[in-house]
Amino acid sequence: MARVSQEHLDARRRQILDGAARCFARNGFHASSMQDVLKEVNLSAGAVYRYFSGKDELIAAVVTEVLGEIREAFEEAARQTPPPLPDVLVGRVMTEVLGLGGAESHGLTWDGETSFPRLMVQVWTETLRDGELSALLREGFGAVREAWVKIVEGYQDAGVMRADIPAEHVARTLIAAAQGFAAQQALFGSAPVTVIQDGLRALMSVGTPH
Amino acid sequence: MARVSQEHLDARRRQILDGAARCFARNGFHASSMQDVLKEVNLSAGAVYRYFSGKDELIAAVVTEVLGEIREAFEEAARQTPPPLPDVLVGRVMTEVLGLGGAESHGLTWDGETSFPRLMVQVWTETLRDGELSALLREGFGAVREAWVKIVEGYQDAGVMRADIPAEHVARTLIAAAQGFAAQQALFGSAPVTVIQDGLRALMSVGTPH
Repeated sequence: MARVSQEHLDARRRQILDGAARCFARNGFHASSMQDVLKEVNLSAGAVYRYFSGKDELIAAVVTEVLGEIREAFEEAARQTPPPLPDVLVGRVMTEVLGLGGAESHGLTWDGETSFPRLMVQVWTETLRDGELSALLREGFGAVREAWVKIVEGYQDAGVMRADIPAEHVARTLIAAAQGFAAQQALFGSAPVTVIQDGLRALMSVGTPH
Repeated sequence: MARVSQEHLDARRRQILDGAARCFARNGFHASSMQDVLKEVNLSAGAVYRYFSGKDELIAAVVTEVLGEIREAFEEAARQTPPPLPDVLVGRVMTEVLGLGGAESHGLTWDGETSFPRLMVQVWTETLRDGELSALLREGFGAVREAWVKIVEGYQDAGVMRADIPAEHVARTLIAAAQGFAAQQALFGSAPVTVIQDGLRALMSVGTPH
C-alpha cells in the first residue's frame, strides 16, 4: 500500500461519510445497504472498509456528526451577546441547521434544503433503539438546554420576560419549536425560516393590546 | 370456520393492531418481524394473516391510526369555543396526544406515557420513504393547519395578537412546538405538559413590561 498523507485519509473519510449521509437521508438507515453506500461514494469495498468496519460503524459516525452539528448550531446561537429575542434566536438556529444541507458545508445536496432535517428525523428514530446513540443525544440535549436556560434567565433579569416561570421550561419550549419546525421541513418540504420567526413574534405579542 | 360476530372480528383486529403498535413503538417498523408481532399478540400466524396480509399492511394500518389520532387531538382542541389562548390550546393537544399511551384509550402501555410519541417519531421516519403514507401525513397536516389558522385569525380579530403576521405562520409555529415537545418525550422520557404551557405563557409575556 502506497504511503498517503493524513490529509488524503481525512478527505477520503469525509467523502465516505457524506455519501453515506446522502444514502441514509434518502432511504433511511435500515433500507440502505453497504452496497448502496459503495455505489453512492463510487469506491470499492476495500477502500471503504479501510475506514469503517461496517454499516453500524458508519451509522454511528453519521449520527455523531449530525448531533454534533445540530448542537453546534444551537450553542452558537446561544453565544450571541446581547442575546437577541426568541424569534431572532430561533431563526438563527434554523438558518444554520437548514443550511447544513447546503453545498458549502456538508455535501448533503441530493435533495436541497430538506436533506439535513430528513437525516435528523432518521437519527431520532435510530436513537430510540440504540442505547449508546441515545446517551449521546441526551447529553447533547442537556448541553443545549443549559445554554438556552442562561439566555432565558437573561431575558428574565432584563425584565423582557415574566420571571415567575422556570427558565428551563421556556428553554425546552423554544428548542421544541425549532425541533418541530425542522421535522416539518423533513416531512413536508422546505419552508422559509421567516415562518417560525413570524410565528414566535406573533406569540410574543399576545398580552399586549393591539 | 365457525361463524363469528362482527364485534368479535373487530375486537380481534383491535388486539392485533395494539400488539403491533407496541412492537413497533419498542423496536421500530424495520426491526420488528411478523414473528415478534405474533408473539406480542399471542395469536397464531393463521389468525393474524386472516386480518392482515403481512407486515406492510400492518404498518400501513398502524400509521393510519396514529396519524388519525393525532389529527383528532389537534382538531378537537381547535373546536373549543371560545378558543383558549395558545398556551392552554397546545396544552390540551399535548395532554390528549400523550394520553394516547394510556391504558384507557389505545392499549399502548408497554412503556407508559412515551410509547405514543415514540410511535409518532417512527411514523415520521416511515413516511419519509413511503409515498402513500407521506400523502396521508401531508393531508392530515393540511387539515390541522387549516383548523389552527382559523383560531389564530380569531386571536387577531379579537385584538389578542398582532394582526400583521400571516395566521398560517403562527399556526405552523404552534404545531411545531407541539411536535417538538412530543419528540422530546419520545427521545428523553416523559415530561409534564405544564413545561410547554409555561414556555408558551412566558413567550406570550415578551413585549409586555415586567
